[in-house]
Amino acid sequence: MASLHHFSDRLHAAIRAKGTPALVGIDPRLKSLPAPVRDAATGPTELDRAADAFERFGKGLIDAVADLVPAVKPQSAFFEELGPPGVAALSRIIVHARAAGLIVVLDAKRGDIGSTAGAYARGLLGGAEPERPDLADALTVNPFLGADTLEPFVSVAKERGAGLYVLCKTSNPGSGAFQGVTQDGRSVTQRVAAEIDRLSQETVGEGGYGIVGAVVGATYPAELAELRAAMPSAPLLVPGYGSQGGTAADVAGAFDGAGLGALVNSSRAVNFAFAAEPYAAEFGPTRWQQASAAAARAMVDDLKAATS
Amino acid sequence: MASLHHFSDRLHAAIRAKGTPALVGIDPRLKSLPAPVRDAATGPTELDRAADAFERFGKGLIDAVADLVPAVKPQSAFFEELGPPGVAALSRIIVHARAAGLIVVLDAKRGDIGSTAGAYARGLLGGAEPERPDLADALTVNPFLGADTLEPFVSVAKERGAGLYVLCKTSNPGSGAFQGVTQDGRSVTQRVAAEIDRLSQETVGEGGYGIVGAVVGATYPAELAELRAAMPSAPLLVPGYGSQGGTAADVAGAFDGAGLGALVNSSRAVNFAFAAEPYAAEFGPTRWQQASAAAARAMVDDLKAATS
Repeated sequence: MASLHHFSDRLHAAIRAKGTPALVGIDPRLKSLPAPVRDAATGPTELDRAADAFERFGKGLIDAVADLVPAVKPQSAFFEELGPPGVAALSRIIVHARAAGLIVVLDAKRGDIGSTAGAYARGLLGGAEPERPDLADALTVNPFLGADTLEPFVSVAKERGAGLYVLCKTSNPGSGAFQGVTQDGRSVTQRVAAEIDRLSQETVGEGGYGIVGAVVGATYPAELAELRAAMPSAPLLVPGYGSQGGTAADVAGAFDGAGLGALVNSSRAVNFAFAAEPYAAEFGPTRWQQASAAAARAMVDDLKAATS
Repeated sequence: MASLHHFSDRLHAAIRAKGTPALVGIDPRLKSLPAPVRDAATGPTELDRAADAFERFGKGLIDAVADLVPAVKPQSAFFEELGPPGVAALSRIIVHARAAGLIVVLDAKRGDIGSTAGAYARGLLGGAEPERPDLADALTVNPFLGADTLEPFVSVAKERGAGLYVLCKTSNPGSGAFQGVTQDGRSVTQRVAAEIDRLSQETVGEGGYGIVGAVVGATYPAELAELRAAMPSAPLLVPGYGSQGGTAADVAGAFDGAGLGALVNSSRAVNFAFAAEPYAAEFGPTRWQQASAAAARAMVDDLKAATS
């Protein structure tokens, strides 16, 4: 039986329970929110009203997909865009998601040196033993400052039963500019992967996966399969599926033989399904939650091909 | 005359006015705060009280050094460690620093792709034309995701008269792990520098410097001098002086012939001067602000050797 204190064991229990590795991003943008959500928002200032709309939207999206997927991924940037009221809304959304039994991966791409990295980890990572209910189960981390700067994150994650996803090969068109620089036959991406492999092996749980994973974009399917093989114990977080062009076939290489070892993220296509066909005609802005649920179900179905 | 809308022109006007390139970090840690500051803090919860102590400390530090230095650098991680109350305290500290006429460099090391990078920039960067008074004049940015991911930051910074400091060669012992990977004779650091050079030249102001600068550690003086030469229009932000071991001689290479083009940061030595000799005996925790002012004056004097 999997240890409920270990991130990957908890994650895989959730993936098995829901029968899918689909991860729904929570990426609110004020202009894209359904009109009824914007109209219902209240608050003394424009920023407070925007933050209230984000909170209503985030909680509503969680309610819409909580029975369908194992995990959600709030994007910190969109909440930070609203300043302190946005950060407070994010905090309440994380509490709501955890209360709904979802694993929360906070996409904040933090990175710094020594004690500063530790402060980020302590302030954002809760895991199985949260000091505060608004801390995430896992955090995305940027390795640019060096392998030594990952240690404080790992140390806090270990202590709290939380996980980390280290940026390894990002999904954007220009990700090769620095990640692809290659010396002695090994690229920066491969060096980051070697570090993640070591850290994941050192933290392996009962299910064979560690608590230190990697972000690898669906938009680079050949590298995704290679990196899966290079980091057999690392849980993967795969962005770039859907809106960025990655298909179920593109992400197939992320999974092990049991269909485990990876989460595949979709944000825009699920968040704003109400405004796009085929859901716009059927649901529209008033029934935006049903549209998001339908889009999440379509994603789950589509991913079945990749994991079986 | 320098344009007051352009980040480097504003920065250099402030450096000239104060006669020093010293930058004071605002890095509160609860255990290290002067007892009178901790004791004065109020609030309904432990986190609120900690955030109140951080706010009192940050504002008090600003009051202590506002006449002595041109700029301050709050470290976002320490505020985020306290969750939403900490982020709200940081926001009020930024307002206080700007009202005191200081340039605020927010050290948050953000980085993400496309529209997400834009959200960070819009939410954290204010500059000469702030939408909100709690936005910073400049932001540290992590380039790992690729040169393409810098563009949204540059676009917002341009629009608002703000600046960016892109991580180029960080001050930690392990910074070479990925930054030092070298292909065709050019390291990742040199490639990031080339990108910064291009972006700084494209945004050059009346004083010859652009709005896109570089973070280069004082702990690597040879690389600092090389990188200064490789990015002649880029304002530099130099951490690692003082507590991390960098000396005035080590940072001398960061400056142009007029003693401009760089800010040199000190955090711990100024923040917690009251607890360290030679200031502890003279001032102690009750007169912690005088201790910080004395430490800032000592830094200013020490740096004179580097800029003349």
